[in-house]
Amino acid sequence: MLRKERLFTPGPVPLPPQVIKALGQQIIHHRTPEFTQIFLSVREKLQKMLKTDKDVLIFSSSGTGAMEASAINFFKKNDTVLVINAGKFGQRWKEIAEKYELKVIDYEIEWGKTYDKDMLIEIVGKFPEIKGIFVQHSETSTTTLHDINFLAKISKKLDDCLLVVDGITSVGVYEVYPDEIGIDVLVTGSQKALMLPPGLSVLWFSEKAKERLKSSNIPKYYFDVQKEAKKQKDGQTAYTPPINLIIGLNESLNLILDEGLPELAKRHEIMAKATREAMKALGLTLLSESPSNSATGVYTPEGINADEFRKILLNIGFRVAGGQDHLKGKIFRVAHMGYFDFMDMIQVIAGIEMALDKIGYNIELGTGVKKAQEIFIKNL
Amino acid sequence: MLRKERLFTPGPVPLPPQVIKALGQQIIHHRTPEFTQIFLSVREKLQKMLKTDKDVLIFSSSGTGAMEASAINFFKKNDTVLVINAGKFGQRWKEIAEKYELKVIDYEIEWGKTYDKDMLIEIVGKFPEIKGIFVQHSETSTTTLHDINFLAKISKKLDDCLLVVDGITSVGVYEVYPDEIGIDVLVTGSQKALMLPPGLSVLWFSEKAKERLKSSNIPKYYFDVQKEAKKQKDGQTAYTPPINLIIGLNESLNLILDEGLPELAKRHEIMAKATREAMKALGLTLLSESPSNSATGVYTPEGINADEFRKILLNIGFRVAGGQDHLKGKIFRVAHMGYFDFMDMIQVIAGIEMALDKIGYNIELGTGVKKAQEIFIKNL
Repeated sequence: MLRKERLFTPGPVPLPPQVIKALGQQIIHHRTPEFTQIFLSVREKLQKMLKTDKDVLIFSSSGTGAMEASAINFFKKNDTVLVINAGKFGQRWKEIAEKYELKVIDYEIEWGKTYDKDMLIEIVGKFPEIKGIFVQHSETSTTTLHDINFLAKISKKLDDCLLVVDGITSVGVYEVYPDEIGIDVLVTGSQKALMLPPGLSVLWFSEKAKERLKSSNIPKYYFDVQKEAKKQKDGQTAYTPPINLIIGLNESLNLILDEGLPELAKRHEIMAKATREAMKALGLTLLSESPSNSATGVYTPEGINADEFRKILLNIGFRVAGGQDHLKGKIFRVAHMGYFDFMDMIQVIAGIEMALDKIGYNIELGTGVKKAQEIFIKNL
Repeated sequence: MLRKERLFTPGPVPLPPQVIKALGQQIIHHRTPEFTQIFLSVREKLQKMLKTDKDVLIFSSSGTGAMEASAINFFKKNDTVLVINAGKFGQRWKEIAEKYELKVIDYEIEWGKTYDKDMLIEIVGKFPEIKGIFVQHSETSTTTLHDINFLAKISKKLDDCLLVVDGITSVGVYEVYPDEIGIDVLVTGSQKALMLPPGLSVLWFSEKAKERLKSSNIPKYYFDVQKEAKKQKDGQTAYTPPINLIIGLNESLNLILDEGLPELAKRHEIMAKATREAMKALGLTLLSESPSNSATGVYTPEGINADEFRKILLNIGFRVAGGQDHLKGKIFRVAHMGYFDFMDMIQVIAGIEMALDKIGYNIELGTGVKKAQEIFIKNL
């Protein structure tokens, strides 16, 4: 019997038909007025999405490339930086910073939790020399949201500190307006809420961060922000750009801007809430104490291996993600980021119920679906 | 009236329909057995293409990213390296090497020429401490081929030297078998003879190069060859891979392997020869004294601005490339690399004749076409 595979992983996420169509086209040359016009239009749309008039750069790399670019362009060797390390991607900030000889204050946090404000104030009080705070806005591995508004306030109180935000699973999910919030460096990647295949990353930076570019003494070539900023201003790139992803991005940004950021953020909020409430109604426990609207992490019931559960769910028709590192086999993660609407979530919730039933967990079928329906109906 | 635009630039090059189809598909997740299988199959096909059983890594970057990876993974700060600097991309080797604090012996060569063997022997005799020779197999900016077989011999005679080859416009054009030739590091990019959009790069390395990985003291994170080699062996990548380009690469490698490397190399040789002979028959002068089979650089006649000429040619239906830096306005470059056959070249040669006529250069129409026809007919 036909069984479709529906992708509900927190990246890559399904591509909208407009994007698929744009990607499945003959290539065009990038050193042409035609491409320059698309590129400038894409940058302008990125600026609209971020409500900013500052530089937004595009790199041909995965999101990790843009994370690396943040560390090597805006800091000097031996700069002290604070890493909010609350998951797989917090660890990545730490690894990158250490690799390039930044002095890392590693604020390690139990996976599924966010930072403690008092503790943060204490750390910052102890180390006034902090030159940067590295954080995930949404930590994908634990589906946790970190309050970046508070971090921005703290960062501003320091003598000379940049707030560096990995927005890989928050840009396109939340209203992330870096100027208003007080972010200094913001990165994101294509295969998340930008609804594209992986291979394109985005880096935004503030005026304050721009000042740092001159004094950075970490060698860089491929990820050279100054060089790219100079080129991209005029609609070109220092090295060959990911042409077809940029053309696809033009389409996905049209979708994002047509929906409007407030509406888009509300949709994600409602889908996330419905998913969380449905899971709770089924007696399941959420992974995160500060859940993100991009994906929901859920513990499988005692005695049920999450990876076994995911296999059954896949067989029914849904691919969700598992847990990483010590969470492997204990949790599953359902995305609601990007090209999803209410009824997509109803569908996956129904599938989760059926997989739970199939694996022998005693539930009343429809309990989660009903909870989600109630929430969605209020918002129709 | 309908005027199609045909792409004859030395990258990007036209995508075969099979690749376009593969790119215009819904995304699949990369942490799946399905993707792992494709990825391992692609790596195996890359190995077949290169006639090797050694590691072939894939990065999510433009070709420049893989060039950077070559410099930062296989060398130590202050290592002396010789750069064969005969064009835009030779300059890039130099810039990258210097950026990461390698000591560069800059063997600068007039654009359009290749290195002098005696001069090379002299340089190498003077600097026995050379730890690497960086070269373009095919220097795209000047459409020049550098003899890498001779360089491999010279490299082997040195105490501890790696031959690092930018094969960005030679892999998929020539039979580039790095083990046989004696290359130590070979890089290529997706948007050239691999017939894909830009955004994927390839790096191959020898056993001798592998030894160097341990002692390299240049910091690296995104382009970490050791980390990638470990992951890619099992069909995964350290960071999110360019999923749809890898799926496209699977298709283009099928095309390459189905044609067979000797046949493919012969096709490129004949197309290149026909193009060069046609240009000469029209009284035009070739840019390169050692022309590459990937593209042909041609001087426009005295008094005719090449960029004006290219505009006319574009209006007729063909996009060719211009000259870079001091060659701007003086030359045009026609690609015959990738998804081109004999009749494609006949078409562009006819177009070039018509554009020459249109701009006021006195030729007998059909002279170049006839020359090419004769050469092609011999090879049918």
